Amino acid sequence: MKKQNNAPSKAKGDNTSRKTGKAFSEKKTATAPRAPQNKGGATPPRSAKEHGKPRGKLKIVFLGGVGEIGKNMTAFEYGDSIVVVDAGMSFPGSDMPGVDVVIPDVSYLQENRNKIKGILLTHGHEDHIGAMPFILEKLGRRVDVFGTRLTLALVENKLNEHNATNLVNLVPVSDRSVVSLGNFTAEFIHVSHSVAGSVAICLRTPVGTVLHTGDFKVDYTPLGNEIMNLNRIAEIGKQGVLLLMSESTNVEKPGYTMSESVVQETLNQIFREARGRRLIIATFASNVDRLGMIIELAKTYRRKIALSGKSMNKYIETAVRVGILNIDEDMFVDIDKVSSVEDGKLVILSTGSQGEPMSALTRMASGEFHKVQIGSNDTIVISANPIPGNERDVYSVVNNLYRQGANVVYSALSAVHVSGHACQEELKLIYTLVKPKYFIPIHGEYRHLKQHAMLVENLKHKKSNIIIPELGDVVELDQNTFRVAGSVVSGSVMVDGLGVGDVGNVVLKDRLSLSENGILVCALGVSKKTGKPVTSPQVISRGCFFEEDGAPSSILEELTEQINKELASLKQSDVAAIKSALQKTVRHYFRVKLQRNPIVLPIVLEL
Amino acid sequence: MKKQNNAPSKAKGDNTSRKTGKAFSEKKTATAPRAPQNKGGATPPRSAKEHGKPRGKLKIVFLGGVGEIGKNMTAFEYGDSIVVVDAGMSFPGSDMPGVDVVIPDVSYLQENRNKIKGILLTHGHEDHIGAMPFILEKLGRRVDVFGTRLTLALVENKLNEHNATNLVNLVPVSDRSVVSLGNFTAEFIHVSHSVAGSVAICLRTPVGTVLHTGDFKVDYTPLGNEIMNLNRIAEIGKQGVLLLMSESTNVEKPGYTMSESVVQETLNQIFREARGRRLIIATFASNVDRLGMIIELAKTYRRKIALSGKSMNKYIETAVRVGILNIDEDMFVDIDKVSSVEDGKLVILSTGSQGEPMSALTRMASGEFHKVQIGSNDTIVISANPIPGNERDVYSVVNNLYRQGANVVYSALSAVHVSGHACQEELKLIYTLVKPKYFIPIHGEYRHLKQHAMLVENLKHKKSNIIIPELGDVVELDQNTFRVAGSVVSGSVMVDGLGVGDVGNVVLKDRLSLSENGILVCALGVSKKTGKPVTSPQVISRGCFFEEDGAPSSILEELTEQINKELASLKQSDVAAIKSALQKTVRHYFRVKLQRNPIVLPIVLEL
Repeated sequence: MKKQNNAPSKAKGDNTSRKTGKAFSEKKTATAPRAPQNKGGATPPRSAKEHGKPRGKLKIVFLGGVGEIGKNMTAFEYGDSIVVVDAGMSFPGSDMPGVDVVIPDVSYLQENRNKIKGILLTHGHEDHIGAMPFILEKLGRRVDVFGTRLTLALVENKLNEHNATNLVNLVPVSDRSVVSLGNFTAEFIHVSHSVAGSVAICLRTPVGTVLHTGDFKVDYTPLGNEIMNLNRIAEIGKQGVLLLMSESTNVEKPGYTMSESVVQETLNQIFREARGRRLIIATFASNVDRLGMIIELAKTYRRKIALSGKSMNKYIETAVRVGILNIDEDMFVDIDKVSSVEDGKLVILSTGSQGEPMSALTRMASGEFHKVQIGSNDTIVISANPIPGNERDVYSVVNNLYRQGANVVYSALSAVHVSGHACQEELKLIYTLVKPKYFIPIHGEYRHLKQHAMLVENLKHKKSNIIIPELGDVVELDQNTFRVAGSVVSGSVMVDGLGVGDVGNVVLKDRLSLSENGILVCALGVSKKTGKPVTSPQVISRGCFFEEDGAPSSILEELTEQINKELASLKQSDVAAIKSALQKTVRHYFRVKLQRNPIVLPIVLEL
Repeated sequence: MKKQNNAPSKAKGDNTSRKTGKAFSEKKTATAPRAPQNKGGATPPRSAKEHGKPRGKLKIVFLGGVGEIGKNMTAFEYGDSIVVVDAGMSFPGSDMPGVDVVIPDVSYLQENRNKIKGILLTHGHEDHIGAMPFILEKLGRRVDVFGTRLTLALVENKLNEHNATNLVNLVPVSDRSVVSLGNFTAEFIHVSHSVAGSVAICLRTPVGTVLHTGDFKVDYTPLGNEIMNLNRIAEIGKQGVLLLMSESTNVEKPGYTMSESVVQETLNQIFREARGRRLIIATFASNVDRLGMIIELAKTYRRKIALSGKSMNKYIETAVRVGILNIDEDMFVDIDKVSSVEDGKLVILSTGSQGEPMSALTRMASGEFHKVQIGSNDTIVISANPIPGNERDVYSVVNNLYRQGANVVYSALSAVHVSGHACQEELKLIYTLVKPKYFIPIHGEYRHLKQHAMLVENLKHKKSNIIIPELGDVVELDQNTFRVAGSVVSGSVMVDGLGVGDVGNVVLKDRLSLSENGILVCALGVSKKTGKPVTSPQVISRGCFFEEDGAPSSILEELTEQINKELASLKQSDVAAIKSALQKTVRHYFRVKLQRNPIVLPIVLEL
């Protein structure tokens, strides 16, 4: 299946002939027959002035990450070639109870699976790689996947869990790697971010160069990493960039994002001041640079390290395996044996910085983690910001840690965390270095994209040369055209347990209604012959009102009485009529009695 | 029922003799028999040195607002006298689906209802007055209620809705009003806050003076209001204060809270720059000072005002009625007629600053509010911060307003809102002016209270003279004692529709489980004689997996088959055995097939 792979020495895939530069005419039917949308302030469609080669246009299909946070995924198509950048998942909001993860709808890629020349991964965060196993299963073919060594190792962990490693050919790349993919050539450019091995992608296409920033920040003093390759970006900018796609997460924030070295300074001070006290630091397991920094501090302050939480162990093991972390094995002490280590000689590195209910930190805070009992000789650092929506859980952990007498340091009080995303001045820097003809803000809710558009307008970018894409939009471009040309099927596919996509809007609506109102089941046996009730109604509720072990309360008795009365007065007596009578009576009773609207499920058994 | 009322001229109640100063012996049985808690770093119980009068101790019962945000309520008890400060509600979190509001458990006050000399209200926010109608109903007796004119007018609106005005005697007070209440005397002191008519309360008790700040900020340039009466607080401090109870909402924030006049400047600039554009401003309807300021700006810039949202109309009507707002009637235009007003001549004042799904602003944003169509000539100002937990809803509104082409200004971008709560420097100021012997931080989650305690420790306050109270704690104090002496029944009473307290933890657990997993009902008819099934099982689900209109999917058919098989193999056949077999089969099927755990409800009808 593999068509193209011209990566430099680091790339392992087999190489065949390059096909870049060849123009393909556009396949109009590739976009679904939905009417063109022009929500994003795009230029109105205009007749493409075709002058010389290439005759085709580049199509960019937005499958995720625009108009939303998470599940980042974009497809680039020219002629018979599609390359996909990222395959992320998102976490369900409160409007999706019971859902484990959300992945992009990739119907479009399934239909065009044979065009796919590769999936390019910008970095190893879940919102960029989390959908990989599901999507590979949907594509049902082997695909070349390009990413840095850490990114690919994280993908590999994931595929192992799903027994899906046979579906990929993993091709490691690094800063300045170039790979050829059908009509495209991709160059990977090192950027700073909150996970090591992050890259931007420079995609050379038959119509011009596209620069996709991935997630990034400009950090002049990063840890354990080269500085973002600004020189290469400047060089590419000078050569001429047709389109810049730049991430928008922190666009609301003026100035610069602080350097990771600020966190280092703060943590160093905390280590210094915690002499004789036990230190517990919770952070994102994926931020391996920060883990490395904390391990270095532990070495400096002669503390042993214990790891707590499955993913903490997994990320560290993976980072060591790919050579990003270099760790002295005997610095570590098993979490089961920390009680044998003096408080002042120990750091516990823990997951749970988001207050996840099952995490070690949350259980420590509530006194349910028997390996570590929190007390007044503990200093606990939460080296993370609460992700929006997690505040309640995180602060509940902080409250409980304080209740146990510990000292707690978190991001609202001290610079123990910095963002991995560029603020306004950094976004301006990248834009100015690249100075593209067209601009598309990506990775953000609509307001982020809109503000990013406004930001580059202030840098004198022509408004008509900006498109704010919506999910599913297909943007078509060449040197003379830049427009939303149509859209494809897109959206959220929900994963719940082993089910992928079997939880849809009907089920979610029911779940939300069940949680708001509860459910009342009325069961009744009726005679097949006469259509008359032959049992008394059985009424059972869940989530409606107080009841012990489902035993009928006085309300249920009163209700049963009313049902009997209503049934007795029924003129026409068949299953449908009885069901409707049950429903009506119960609804009415609850509306009047309690101003509530439980879901009412009438069940009639015919005998 | 009314016992005491010695308010100055503004107080309308009938006055009887003062009883202050008389000492009562403490009734030990008043606290519930729960073991003393000492979570809060309180001093260990020590034998009270009783020297001379007064012989009793003051008891402070924390019924709400400590260890939580919201439902503020505290009772002060000495001998036969109880005064209650505030009676607030809180809004349910995501762990309380379907619940409308949450009120404090006031069992203790119900038991001691005859001691209650009055309820003192610090201001008219819901978290301070929202539980009034429910609690008055529970007390079932007429109570004197003291508050400023606006506060009482807001309470009155609420009581009217509940037909409960007969349960109160409303006694208006103002800055420096003094009322006598059994063993207590209360003085009201004007403070700045985000609702007009806010007061602190100085409670003179037989054991000494207690100062309760209520919610406050120190604003040297407030709008339409006197400056907080710092001089009086300084004077009281000089006279000697036994206990300071100070609010803790913004204790995590260094420095000072910005003045309301900053918002005025920002809004003035927005008015100036919006020439020719329509202005829509969403803010808290309760912030009548800000409403007044916006109305003044409208006058200056010659714009008409339209009100949108029920509570916006209600608060303005109330503020006008009590004389806080002075409005020229012909400045207003009906919201139904705004299309006849030129964009540049109009301001719409709207509710919905928290993204409430049914609010006017949310419906405008999604294009469902037919009276106001949002377009590119609109500037929309959200003059509020998202209350934690509301971010998703608020930003969804912002996203949609941008999608409609409007210009949107919100607090993340511009100083269009300031908090009503004191930051660290203001808290230090009040502490320093009062310099109390004892300190209790109030109004906050545990972390806020803890940090407030740490803040006053840094001001050289003795650690053993600070108590961090937990819900239900009873603090006992006099000149020599300061300790958590016990606790009373306390907690959250949930209001759902007309039901008060019938939704408890069992119901909430069911609701959450229903929303995560859905429900599966299996109904079966069995013979009373033989105990054997006489119908085939009927399986119905809600919220489990995709199904149209509840029609059985292939999974339901497969499941029915398995149930039949299991039933056929049953050796012992009675109702209990059948129920258990149904439950077992269905649970097993879902765990294996989909890794899910729906609630399974077996129903067996005997015939």
